[in-house]
Amino acid sequence: MEQYVSSRNLRFVIHEMLNTAELQRFERFQGYDKESIDMALDAAKQLSDQYLYPFYREMDKNKAVYDNGTVKVHPCMRPGIKALAEGGWISAHDEFEVGGQQMPYTLLNACTFIFHAANANLSCHPFLTTGAANLIRNFGSPELNETYIPNLYNGDWQGTMALTEPQAGSSLSDITSSAEPVNGGEYYKIKGQKIYISGGDHDGVDNVVHLLLARIKGAPAGTKGISLFVVPKYRPEGDGLVFNDVTTAGIYGKMGQKGYVAAHLMLGEQHDDCRGYLVGQANAGLKYMFQMMNEARIGTGMVAAATASAAYYASLKYANERPQGRHPSNKDLTLPQVLIIEHADVRRMLLYQKAVVEGSIALLMLCSYYGDVSHQSTGEEAQNAHLLFELLTPIAKSYPSEWGIHAVSMGMQVLGGAGYTDDFPLEQHYRDIRVNAIYEGTTTIHGLDLLGRKLTMENGKAAMLLGQEIQKEVQTALTMPALAPYAEKLGKVGAGLQETLGKLVQTGMQEGPEVYLADATIFLEYFSYLVMGWMWLKQANLAQKALDAGQSGSEKLFYESKIQTCLYYFEYELPKATALKVTLNSSARVTLGTRPEVLV
Amino acid sequence: MEQYVSSRNLRFVIHEMLNTAELQRFERFQGYDKESIDMALDAAKQLSDQYLYPFYREMDKNKAVYDNGTVKVHPCMRPGIKALAEGGWISAHDEFEVGGQQMPYTLLNACTFIFHAANANLSCHPFLTTGAANLIRNFGSPELNETYIPNLYNGDWQGTMALTEPQAGSSLSDITSSAEPVNGGEYYKIKGQKIYISGGDHDGVDNVVHLLLARIKGAPAGTKGISLFVVPKYRPEGDGLVFNDVTTAGIYGKMGQKGYVAAHLMLGEQHDDCRGYLVGQANAGLKYMFQMMNEARIGTGMVAAATASAAYYASLKYANERPQGRHPSNKDLTLPQVLIIEHADVRRMLLYQKAVVEGSIALLMLCSYYGDVSHQSTGEEAQNAHLLFELLTPIAKSYPSEWGIHAVSMGMQVLGGAGYTDDFPLEQHYRDIRVNAIYEGTTTIHGLDLLGRKLTMENGKAAMLLGQEIQKEVQTALTMPALAPYAEKLGKVGAGLQETLGKLVQTGMQEGPEVYLADATIFLEYFSYLVMGWMWLKQANLAQKALDAGQSGSEKLFYESKIQTCLYYFEYELPKATALKVTLNSSARVTLGTRPEVLV
Repeated sequence: MEQYVSSRNLRFVIHEMLNTAELQRFERFQGYDKESIDMALDAAKQLSDQYLYPFYREMDKNKAVYDNGTVKVHPCMRPGIKALAEGGWISAHDEFEVGGQQMPYTLLNACTFIFHAANANLSCHPFLTTGAANLIRNFGSPELNETYIPNLYNGDWQGTMALTEPQAGSSLSDITSSAEPVNGGEYYKIKGQKIYISGGDHDGVDNVVHLLLARIKGAPAGTKGISLFVVPKYRPEGDGLVFNDVTTAGIYGKMGQKGYVAAHLMLGEQHDDCRGYLVGQANAGLKYMFQMMNEARIGTGMVAAATASAAYYASLKYANERPQGRHPSNKDLTLPQVLIIEHADVRRMLLYQKAVVEGSIALLMLCSYYGDVSHQSTGEEAQNAHLLFELLTPIAKSYPSEWGIHAVSMGMQVLGGAGYTDDFPLEQHYRDIRVNAIYEGTTTIHGLDLLGRKLTMENGKAAMLLGQEIQKEVQTALTMPALAPYAEKLGKVGAGLQETLGKLVQTGMQEGPEVYLADATIFLEYFSYLVMGWMWLKQANLAQKALDAGQSGSEKLFYESKIQTCLYYFEYELPKATALKVTLNSSARVTLGTRPEVLV
Repeated sequence: MEQYVSSRNLRFVIHEMLNTAELQRFERFQGYDKESIDMALDAAKQLSDQYLYPFYREMDKNKAVYDNGTVKVHPCMRPGIKALAEGGWISAHDEFEVGGQQMPYTLLNACTFIFHAANANLSCHPFLTTGAANLIRNFGSPELNETYIPNLYNGDWQGTMALTEPQAGSSLSDITSSAEPVNGGEYYKIKGQKIYISGGDHDGVDNVVHLLLARIKGAPAGTKGISLFVVPKYRPEGDGLVFNDVTTAGIYGKMGQKGYVAAHLMLGEQHDDCRGYLVGQANAGLKYMFQMMNEARIGTGMVAAATASAAYYASLKYANERPQGRHPSNKDLTLPQVLIIEHADVRRMLLYQKAVVEGSIALLMLCSYYGDVSHQSTGEEAQNAHLLFELLTPIAKSYPSEWGIHAVSMGMQVLGGAGYTDDFPLEQHYRDIRVNAIYEGTTTIHGLDLLGRKLTMENGKAAMLLGQEIQKEVQTALTMPALAPYAEKLGKVGAGLQETLGKLVQTGMQEGPEVYLADATIFLEYFSYLVMGWMWLKQANLAQKALDAGQSGSEKLFYESKIQTCLYYFEYELPKATALKVTLNSSARVTLGTRPEVLV
């Protein structure tokens, strides 16, 4: 079994960085002490080793195929989904009374990270089901709960998130799928098309349940007229299932994630008899969906970071086994070649990967922790955790997705020509990871979200809270000689960003939202460097304290690796923030000033 | 026919930036006036439209397959190669007396760029043949010339470059394939293995001729004991061809360039009867091969830039056709959605692509021009052109290869989900372009070449010449108000780089080559930003002059697009040089200080 994840690192984040066991102060999480957390992590790893990892490359080589209205996936999909369901992972976050384990998101996401690193082509399926089930659980009627939840939680049925339409990709205001009430709203007749529906149809389950956005006839224009429906492929009637007129027109030929179907669905096209069941209130669908989308965004970041994790360990293994070349200072040809990990530039590429992977994990787990606190706590603590979660979501989604692409690319580069071939898994990681910067809102969308919404909400309170959190780490690091210079650097980047944001806001007030938002993606990159600097200083602070307390053997190496990766981040990555600051502070307005006809 | 290249831009570079017709001052290039240059460019485009472009995606979907020792490629390979041969493109650079056209490299490479943009999976084959033929032409005996050149030039036989061995990827010193003289050197018995041999075996030609590196028994160790051989798959004997014991053990499952085979060859394995014919002097093989490698490096940069060119035009087309979303300042839902090219961030992604593609073309053509001058001129002019060619080769190879990856990725991002599917060519461009940063020396190797060899050769004379060339453009730009601020910025980056290099050299003298070369890849990136800034200022200077002289219609738009892309480069890209300068000036020695065992 090849390594695809570091269990030691996950435990570092879960226990040392976050003290997840302390979440037991919330009644819901009683019993999640350190031992049971470790048991859950072990169980996740064991399941992954058995049902997920061995089929990662298999599912790519024998990809999902569409044949005359049906979608055949790899034969290991069904037992894999079943194993995850039987392990309790689909319902783990939910309450005991519906068969859940009331597991903290922090722990669940650490386990999910292991599943994704082993084989996200498979593991995405049950976790999409969890998201769909959540919407029914939170907003659906008792009848919907009774009919759907048990079948979703036992892995027999697949849940999906059906938003995108051909004419309305990222622009949800322009959704046109229609819903017409029948029998005073007993059900709705659904008409329309949905595209790129992940897990939208496949034979690894018995039924597929779409949590689908549509517009009730006569509803207001835009996002205020969108409702949420449960639309199954087969609807339960009496004791059996009846075809619900959801047809799969085809699946997309994706560059990667080939085991994981993206379907094109036609609703009510064959018999004009596709029935949808309203979830919650009419016209409130987007609000509900956003709950699922926030989870899906963290989930997308996790898939990206997990793919980069598997790629990192694959390239590290190669670098530790492949002899090639000699040191610049000793080219004696009678000596054997050295392992490529001896070359400075190979180490740089490995450190880059490690910095992206472990920095991403730290942020994703921290966001999960904020999620737990915001849901379980009350008052200011809950509100602050919620604000930080909201502010950091665009980064937790986009940083692993965008920088993960480069990290996997570096992993491939470590292998040289071998990395470009299917003799090694890197080329699959490279293809698979690319989509995460598109899924669940492109990076552009998240830039707009960050600058246009998150930084301005409650008069910038989230940003202020983040500033305080960063200051805490800076102050701690300033007391440690090895880290003090980096604390100062991070403080400077933070101050520069604050100043840049202030100027941007002023410019926006003077020149309007086009100018304010024009470089939102660049701002997101800039902000990401700050947030990741914070993550690395946080980890290095803990590592330095552990080293100061005395460590030996592999534990010593582990903490040293954290310090060394932090140094790498501050010497090679953080300086890039300065370049982005220059661009953001320019008044040249290049992109706005480029008339479309000039692009030839 | 979709656009994959800008003929207007190639003409701008060839006529306005380089004045290629002026090369007629060299006797070899008599007759290459503006009209005949344009005719050649038109012929190349016409041939590409007919034989190359229509099969680009075809050759990916029906990839090359290995079956029991033989390799089947797409049926369009043979007519495509033949068409290129009959058009005279394989021998175009060579002399009239062997059927060539004595075409300047500058023009030939502009034409080759068109072929590669249309379908590099096909066009790489004949150009590899040209490289192999060049070695025979320059260093081979009359007999070798007589036997091989006509068959290579008429497209019946494929030429290759057989360097890489399993135990010696980038480390050519460690080549072990052996050659034992028979009959006093009439031929050599070759034994060994070669891997990743591009075009190494396929049924689009009747024979394959390997220009192969091997070690004559008893030769000195390292690069000084390597000889060059002609090793055909079938050797001519009497009137026919006899199997020469070159067996294809398999082909690699590549992520991209699937139409273009990379073969694993066994030499002399079946019958101990693989015959090689020495080219030139024994033990001088690597020196000869480097001639071909320099061409191959420029060629690799061209393939990368050409792939990025095709991707740019595919994403530009989509951006001009796809409606999606609304302006931040006008979200009125009763209005139709705007074309995505209206969004600032989409324009940024398009400008990035354009900056990479056209900056790369300018540099590649300039290098080709220096190549022509260095070969045809004499004295100081030839020597200076040679030095600049040598200095710029690592950038001309690596910049299009590395930044081209990002450019294609941006192109895919412009399409969103659609870009990730095979409904559009972007996903193929994305897979295809990735290998160029590995082929013909990884980026790491070119960083070492730049810093360790090119910048120090003749006491830094090449760098001094480059500084003068950059200064010329800076001075010109300073006279134009619109460009003067950018001239100043470029001057500053140049000065910063000079200072950084000075410090590095000093550090290297004090601390040795490990430290001097540790961040060679980062230095190459830094240097690339300077060189590309020079290319953009050069182009903008010409465009501004043309605009000042008065332009209208599409010509005006063309020159404005150059200015606008130059602004983009200076506002968004050049600032990144500063970040790299910070890293290079650090004394933290992070990568050297990272012990391998700390990478966990």
